[in-house]
Amino acid sequence: MADSDSGGTMRDTARTRRLVLDAAARTVAAQGAGVSLDVIARDAGVSKSGLLHHFRSRDQLLRELAEDQMQQFRTAVDAAVDPRDHAAGRLVRGYVNAVFDELKDGSVAPEHIRLVAALSTVPGVDEVMRADTRHWTEQFEADGLHPDRVLLITQAADGASLAAIYEGEPNPAKRQRTRELLLRLSHGEGAP
Amino acid sequence: MADSDSGGTMRDTARTRRLVLDAAARTVAAQGAGVSLDVIARDAGVSKSGLLHHFRSRDQLLRELAEDQMQQFRTAVDAAVDPRDHAAGRLVRGYVNAVFDELKDGSVAPEHIRLVAALSTVPGVDEVMRADTRHWTEQFEADGLHPDRVLLITQAADGASLAAIYEGEPNPAKRQRTRELLLRLSHGEGAP
Repeated sequence: MADSDSGGTMRDTARTRRLVLDAAARTVAAQGAGVSLDVIARDAGVSKSGLLHHFRSRDQLLRELAEDQMQQFRTAVDAAVDPRDHAAGRLVRGYVNAVFDELKDGSVAPEHIRLVAALSTVPGVDEVMRADTRHWTEQFEADGLHPDRVLLITQAADGASLAAIYEGEPNPAKRQRTRELLLRLSHGEGAP
Repeated sequence: MADSDSGGTMRDTARTRRLVLDAAARTVAAQGAGVSLDVIARDAGVSKSGLLHHFRSRDQLLRELAEDQMQQFRTAVDAAVDPRDHAAGRLVRGYVNAVFDELKDGSVAPEHIRLVAALSTVPGVDEVMRADTRHWTEQFEADGLHPDRVLLITQAADGASLAAIYEGEPNPAKRQRTRELLLRLSHGEGAP
């Protein structure tokens, strides 16, 4: 019985944490990193004391939110890597496909950029970002493409996500052309 | 005397508008597009009624701020085009150099991205962005490079500006490597 109780508590904990992180993502994207814990708790449908039971402080919550966002993107890239693809550049192709899948409806990316831009002002988030950058650097080094080719393709994919806020309207034809171009470049060898 | 008075008034008008636009840029980047006119007026050192004399409403001010930001970037690109460069891709090279000059101190770009991401939620700013996109599309069509090459280089330059918020710390070596790579690509012919 103790096991089952503890299992139930763990599930409750995970569910509450998820509710709070999702609420924080929505409210920070909409209102900036200055949003209050009261607003986040209300959006999550939990009490403020319940929220503070799971996250010690606002900065702690926002750091965990940054980690959670980076982790969600890693998961999306892993899922987008073709398991039958064993050629050099398979991770780069997963990265490109994950970014452009996210851009499909033209609405996720601006919110994500607003969120990350807001989070980047929170104390300690810089360390989360540095750790994530190290992760990607190591992963891409093992992917077998020339480093300049990786740099070019991944920066262009990141840039395409900015187009969603810079262009004022979705441009599916341009998005598709960029995606195909980057995938084609990921099959090239040597420096671009 | 009438001429001189009117000239003085025009200068006062231009100066007040500039103070307000700069204050709006700072406060929206820091606090999001929900910032009040009171906060903007205080930051600009003008009265709220003085502010409303120059900008009819908050949305009107924020639309003009978006236009001003786009115009500032155009001016920066024009200034970065090498007047002795008459080869195809000269505007693309100006664009790359303007983006990377702005990134030099590693602090302007995150603020700019926070600002544009926040402004993109303001009614009417989408039309400002669409007009700006049309401007760049026309300009690049006249620049003589293959459209896929323009797409690749400009999206990668835009992506490099995101690195400033995604990486948690400036990486001047990576920035310089990306800049040189993009300038090299701007001298290539045909599709990349």
